[in-house]
Amino acid sequence: MRIAVINEVSARDKNKLILEALATATDAEVFNIGMCDTDAPELGLTYIHTGFMAALALASGAADFVVGGCGTGQGFLISAMQYPGVYCGLLSDPLDAWLFSQINGGNCAALALNKGFGWAGDINLKYIFEKLFSDESGQGYPIHRRESQKESRRLLAGVNRAAHKEFPDIINHIDKSMLSAVTAHKSFMEFMDQYAKTKIILR
Amino acid sequence: MRIAVINEVSARDKNKLILEALATATDAEVFNIGMCDTDAPELGLTYIHTGFMAALALASGAADFVVGGCGTGQGFLISAMQYPGVYCGLLSDPLDAWLFSQINGGNCAALALNKGFGWAGDINLKYIFEKLFSDESGQGYPIHRRESQKESRRLLAGVNRAAHKEFPDIINHIDKSMLSAVTAHKSFMEFMDQYAKTKIILR
Amino acid sequence: MRIAVINEVSARDKNKLILEALATATDAEVFNIGMCDTDAPELGLTYIHTGFMAALALASGAADFVVGGCGTGQGFLISAMQYPGVYCGLLSDPLDAWLFSQINGGNCAALALNKGFGWAGDINLKYIFEKLFSDESGQGYPIHRRESQKESRRLLAGVNRAAHKEFPDIINHIDKSMLSAVTAHKSFMEFMDQYAKTKIILR
Amino acid sequence: MRIAVINEVSARDKNKLILEALATATDAEVFNIGMCDTDAPELGLTYIHTGFMAALALASGAADFVVGGCGTGQGFLISAMQYPGVYCGLLSDPLDAWLFSQINGGNCAALALNKGFGWAGDINLKYIFEKLFSDESGQGYPIHRRESQKESRRLLAGVNRAAHKEFPDIINHIDKSMLSAVTAHKSFMEFMDQYAKTKIILR
Repeated sequence: MRIAVINEVSARDKNKLILEALATATDAEVFNIGMCDTDAPELGLTYIHTGFMAALALASGAADFVVGGCGTGQGFLISAMQYPGVYCGLLSDPLDAWLFSQINGGNCAALALNKGFGWAGDINLKYIFEKLFSDESGQGYPIHRRESQKESRRLLAGVNRAAHKEFPDIINHIDKSMLSAVTAHKSFMEFMDQYAKTKIILR
Repeated sequence: MRIAVINEVSARDKNKLILEALATATDAEVFNIGMCDTDAPELGLTYIHTGFMAALALASGAADFVVGGCGTGQGFLISAMQYPGVYCGLLSDPLDAWLFSQINGGNCAALALNKGFGWAGDINLKYIFEKLFSDESGQGYPIHRRESQKESRRLLAGVNRAAHKEFPDIINHIDKSMLSAVTAHKSFMEFMDQYAKTKIILR
Repeated sequence: MRIAVINEVSARDKNKLILEALATATDAEVFNIGMCDTDAPELGLTYIHTGFMAALALASGAADFVVGGCGTGQGFLISAMQYPGVYCGLLSDPLDAWLFSQINGGNCAALALNKGFGWAGDINLKYIFEKLFSDESGQGYPIHRRESQKESRRLLAGVNRAAHKEFPDIINHIDKSMLSAVTAHKSFMEFMDQYAKTKIILR
Repeated sequence: MRIAVINEVSARDKNKLILEALATATDAEVFNIGMCDTDAPELGLTYIHTGFMAALALASGAADFVVGGCGTGQGFLISAMQYPGVYCGLLSDPLDAWLFSQINGGNCAALALNKGFGWAGDINLKYIFEKLFSDESGQGYPIHRRESQKESRRLLAGVNRAAHKEFPDIINHIDKSMLSAVTAHKSFMEFMDQYAKTKIILR
């Protein structure tokens, strides 16, 4: 399993904490392809960029799961959810994480990295990741709603295809500043070059 | 301002509490167009249906804001966010609500109506709505990021148009069971008939 | 380690969930000596009684740790904290639990068992207990305040002795209805008979 | 109503935010008698000191309500609860605040000022104080348990008297470093001189 961590500018100081938390909580391969705590803010990726990057990483098959977020997590979530193939939850505590994995079986986590993030926020991240990845996803909760939830996920995948354009078409119509910001971000482009199963051309 | 409340099956027993909380917390006109606590579960709208209904209510101009949710809120959020024109936040407490209104200026709220919903959950809903609608939305937080956040919302609206198909096209490709479930839901269809500025044909 | 679980009337339906959560999260011996979910409410122990029982169980050496709570947890906490030898925290999530064990090194947990207790509340209890008992208590957080926190706990123990009367004296002055309620609760009295190192006479 | 704000060292940078939040949320007279954000840490009052000060302010009648706290709030709560006449709740969100005022009718609030304190933590404080002081305290929740809760508070007051020594006796037996730390804190001593109805001699 390949997990991509994609931080935006306002909470880039939490990037290191996310990496450390993932390292102790999972055995997955982790790739750090957004902003780092040492990046200057003028090279800033906002959640508009990181949501796009999350979608590209998932749609191309480069990443199996994306961990993102922003000050409250809501902006990244809304941004990433614009694109086809992204199923993102907002995870504030370990119970959120476990229920999201069991009910929604999603492939993307939005974290609140400034709101409510204080003492031992890094420990809370570790607890969140532990429970996000502890049990096989999609088993349902409560158990008697398991089949109904599975059917909901099946219908949702159909909606997702019905409602979105294809990526080449999206890229043609997107603001060009987004393409230039993303292609200028080296760690992201290298990750995509190496792991994308479906090539998506960003120009 | 017209607020549409759209509940799905698993938390329909909280529908009344949402209506009461909105009545005390805002002066907006409130329309109850999803499931009620007295509806039988076999008439069940799941979050797959209510997310679609939320999008139709917003895209048609019938509603200015939609309040939805589900057991954890995540399913409704993911479902509603599939469609064009929906900007949905997951709101668990009053601070979430205020920050979402100030930073994201969205038009849809997903509530966790079973997870974490215990004693005085109705009072918490009232507090959430108070802060969601207390200040003019989109003013930014923190204040020095106001312009950057405004620009993010502008870019996001462009992405939203670039990434989604138009509603007639979406409806053509969507699972027919979704259309029949939604058109069978009388309170929703009456609301759409009366208030939709753009007619969207559901067949 | 002997953990005593002591539930009061308003949340006695959660008693079973606490026992199950403790069984999966710790290897400690667990004793259920307050109300059960099958007890009739007219046999009700309120948090006034269960706080007293918690203190007796700890002061006598019968229990090493007490898990209690009430609708919000606050009432049990305030009640248990009246007596000598009780150091109780209000624990709502796993991070609370871990920080309390590291900073305060207490011997009593107050749980909110109706407020915020919804779907998967039992899973949240399990997560709380996991982190409460995972690391040796009293190691300090953040680490550079370790010695200062240790010194605070030492001073606190002195205050505790300076501020409280001895138990025989307390029992002499307490409302007699409290003694009769507690002595009528069989599982508690049996536990005390078997495990109390210091006998405290309740009459 | 006189509210005393008493901050300890680890979260003294939040002192100003507490004062601002109280000023917008209540009409009460507010007295700032613990640490300020400009105080040097070596003049540090720990929660051992501020809990003692809270109790003195309440027991003397100088303050009607004390707002304190520490990194997680638990240390201040445990410390303040050692003394007679203190009924303290741990308040993390507005619903905690309202339920505490309605069920417990306490006279002291412990705030988590580092744990979970991030973006807009000051706004959350304002929301907490709004709901803490919005309704007359002690009205009960849920309403059908009103009389039982009133009776619990009456019994608790009796326990409080039965379990604690009197203040002169406590002061005689307390670590002398606590008395010197407290008497050296000018704003506290001035407040006590001016408002204490019962003089408590600190030596």
